[in-house]
Amino acid sequence: MHPSRWGDAAQAGPLPDSTRELVEYAFGLQERPAVAYPQVPAAALPEQIVAGLRAIVGEEHVLLDDETRRVRTRGKSTPDLLRARSGDLADAPDAVVRPASHDQVLALIALAETHRFALVPFGGGTSVTGGLVARRDDVVGVVSLDLIRMKALREVDPISMTAVLEPGLRGPEAEALLAEHQMTLGHYPQSFEYASIGGFAATRSSGQSSAGYGRFDSLVVGLEVATARGTLALGSSPANAAGPDLRQLILGSEGAFGVITAVRVRVRALPTVKAYEAWGFPSFDAGSDAMRLLAQNGQLPTVIRLSDENETALNLASHSNVGGAATEGCLMIVGFEGTDADAVATKRDAVSALLTRSGGTSLGEERGAAWVQGRFAAPYLRDALLDVGVLVETLETATFWSKRDEVYQAVRDALIAELGEKTLVLCHISHVYETGCSLYFTVAAPGGEEPLPTWLAAKAAATEAMVAHGATVSHHHAVGTDHRPWFAREIGPVGVDILRAVKAELDPAGVLNPGVMIP
Amino acid sequence: MHPSRWGDAAQAGPLPDSTRELVEYAFGLQERPAVAYPQVPAAALPEQIVAGLRAIVGEEHVLLDDETRRVRTRGKSTPDLLRARSGDLADAPDAVVRPASHDQVLALIALAETHRFALVPFGGGTSVTGGLVARRDDVVGVVSLDLIRMKALREVDPISMTAVLEPGLRGPEAEALLAEHQMTLGHYPQSFEYASIGGFAATRSSGQSSAGYGRFDSLVVGLEVATARGTLALGSSPANAAGPDLRQLILGSEGAFGVITAVRVRVRALPTVKAYEAWGFPSFDAGSDAMRLLAQNGQLPTVIRLSDENETALNLASHSNVGGAATEGCLMIVGFEGTDADAVATKRDAVSALLTRSGGTSLGEERGAAWVQGRFAAPYLRDALLDVGVLVETLETATFWSKRDEVYQAVRDALIAELGEKTLVLCHISHVYETGCSLYFTVAAPGGEEPLPTWLAAKAAATEAMVAHGATVSHHHAVGTDHRPWFAREIGPVGVDILRAVKAELDPAGVLNPGVMIP
Repeated sequence: MHPSRWGDAAQAGPLPDSTRELVEYAFGLQERPAVAYPQVPAAALPEQIVAGLRAIVGEEHVLLDDETRRVRTRGKSTPDLLRARSGDLADAPDAVVRPASHDQVLALIALAETHRFALVPFGGGTSVTGGLVARRDDVVGVVSLDLIRMKALREVDPISMTAVLEPGLRGPEAEALLAEHQMTLGHYPQSFEYASIGGFAATRSSGQSSAGYGRFDSLVVGLEVATARGTLALGSSPANAAGPDLRQLILGSEGAFGVITAVRVRVRALPTVKAYEAWGFPSFDAGSDAMRLLAQNGQLPTVIRLSDENETALNLASHSNVGGAATEGCLMIVGFEGTDADAVATKRDAVSALLTRSGGTSLGEERGAAWVQGRFAAPYLRDALLDVGVLVETLETATFWSKRDEVYQAVRDALIAELGEKTLVLCHISHVYETGCSLYFTVAAPGGEEPLPTWLAAKAAATEAMVAHGATVSHHHAVGTDHRPWFAREIGPVGVDILRAVKAELDPAGVLNPGVMIP
Repeated sequence: MHPSRWGDAAQAGPLPDSTRELVEYAFGLQERPAVAYPQVPAAALPEQIVAGLRAIVGEEHVLLDDETRRVRTRGKSTPDLLRARSGDLADAPDAVVRPASHDQVLALIALAETHRFALVPFGGGTSVTGGLVARRDDVVGVVSLDLIRMKALREVDPISMTAVLEPGLRGPEAEALLAEHQMTLGHYPQSFEYASIGGFAATRSSGQSSAGYGRFDSLVVGLEVATARGTLALGSSPANAAGPDLRQLILGSEGAFGVITAVRVRVRALPTVKAYEAWGFPSFDAGSDAMRLLAQNGQLPTVIRLSDENETALNLASHSNVGGAATEGCLMIVGFEGTDADAVATKRDAVSALLTRSGGTSLGEERGAAWVQGRFAAPYLRDALLDVGVLVETLETATFWSKRDEVYQAVRDALIAELGEKTLVLCHISHVYETGCSLYFTVAAPGGEEPLPTWLAAKAAATEAMVAHGATVSHHHAVGTDHRPWFAREIGPVGVDILRAVKAELDPAGVLNPGVMIP
């Protein structure tokens, strides 16, 4: 991907007219073209290291050219894009190396320890929290560890319904391999088209179908990890009482403890029946209460998401692919997938009954289908908005149901206080649990002359509000470099000491994604 | 509890006549009375430590008398009982101390560090893996940290359906407090009547209703822990991507990293509808396949357990409380609980349809009710069998479905090879997942003159078989001291290094349950 934009240029259309008009009305238009070919700094990796890399992976898999380094620079947060758009690629890696096996990864880690260069695992490059920006102050260089050659479906177990996947598989590639066995992972984050299996595990990703298929960390039953101390292999059983669950220490470790070289994941039968439907609710509270009851009754559909009043109103105005009349109140998308039409229908009836009792009104399947069609498109819209001077970004958290409204208001207030009264703050709930839910905010404001510091101040204020109200700094986007100060407060000094102790044990030289995750 | 026996003496009847006859026929009777009042060794705790303990918790909560020390000696494994029956209470603690608060626990840990005495958290004393037997070689004494005064239900959140419980609450006490709010934890291990909330968390307990309510580790959304580095408070949200899930590092840590002083747990509505039913299956394979399909279809009832052919035959012959005609094949118990009779009936219909399609035959509710009545009784039967010279013990593991039969056969073979052809090895599956299940074995053999070394050799052979076949050393009874060598192999040298690093960070003086869990 281009370091300034999301995805495939061929899919990135211009800003829809309706959105353009809305932006002009709300913020005024301010064309802000990006630097077309931002330049990477000269690479500075000592020849001895380059020779060592080549000895491990072969000459053709050590890439030093500017173009390769360019497209491996940072991730896809708005700050990442703003920096690249202004021509700043200071965080480009010095080299990109492509190992083909677990043993090659072990050898690369050993080489990194010897020569003290940083290794940054790279899957899809879709981090939105600075997970690909390694600290350079204590290393002689930064090497992007591109896992693109580790793409095997190593094993399927149709009895246990598990599969062993390698980390370099992108979402669609993993699904295609599993589909040959009539299996699915069912993991569809918005970054699905680019993000990788290793990244899903390393960042505790959660997909749009998490209500039905579960968070990625709940799908993982086994892990193979390359560390500076050697190989860590976990997963003797679905669950056990054999000490702490070390799988859960690796999941979310963002490459700071080791490189995940394989995951054994729970899979499901490939669904043959799918039904998506939109519902309207009079308010965010009413819709949220209905979601809570579904979760607490054990009646969750495969997909369930609820937009607040602002997101409901704006989506209809701006997304060319969500048509139909304006909805008062709040829009909910409910999706059902399965292999048995009767079972899907039974579940759908039960969910519909509860939603109706909770004040919901069915808006039909057309808008449900429209959501499915456009589910991965939002990042393209962001690029088009940045082009006309709108500062647009998302951020997210999770909390318990009893604090849902408190956290929602606090984050909204913080963003508006920082960015001004014109700011649009939209929110949806897309991941629900018996005890709580996520809150996913989309923010749009005039970018002004200095959009980057403006946004960083707003992000800090919003994250401060999350932590001050006892919510998490991230429900499904990890810590990266961006969330570290607040993450330290979330887990407290003893929690930080634990992470540092594990880091010191598994990466004593500090060469694995230095500066990421560990406060 | 008496250190040689389980539970309440008033509930411990004599061996049922039918069982007595069966034992006489199978093994021969050999009366083996236990030493009635085994003596504890003289306590050796320096006066300075005793004074320090008294200053923290008050004089009346530092107990040095022999009787208190006696009933705090070891746990309830058969080796524990055999040692006590022979008069050996060498592992008695030097003192029992009863803190009333988190801050008192912090102060006790600081005192233990200063004077280098071991602190062994004590809840219900029901460990069957040596979790209460601290190593004495590097400390001046051992103090049992009895959590009996920390029994508050601190908070209920009826919106989020969570509750904050203190660690000293026994199973029935926690349920009684929650029932006042129409809530239940739904956690019913066989040790329910005595085991504690803190113990459930520290050992990753799983109850007989785990199919419906979940394992204890899956119920915990928040933790408060007293460590030598201070307080660790976790649980900002139901789930998140804020780094590794440190809750899962404390769950299963068996007091070796810190003392759990509160847990925030997910609770459910107190069930008002309950239905239990017995089913017959032609074979263990057929019944096991039915369980697997229920789990993979998302149709699990609240309770599901399946006895193999041996356990089915023997249960009917020996348990006075499971009546009725002999069952060919394998007995399954299926239980449904809920608050809505229609929903329970719908679920039950779906489960019954699948069980019937899988070759099952309903045996009616009477035997289901009999199982409910006797569900906590087995440990009493063990005492009566030990009295007549039968070596009887349980052990358990978990594996993936595709390896279920392989592990089952390997553990059976190992036990019979070690204990002889007369050995009875019974097995049931009582915890099921989409990807696998537990296997819980009951072993009975003639005890002979040296039952303890005989059993330790058999246990070693069985555990060796588990690890050799890639299964876990414990599905729900933790590592303790008994499983440590095999646990080290299960998680490998890098896994062991991680645990040692966390131990060194959180307990640098090595005073928290030394010798337990960490290999």
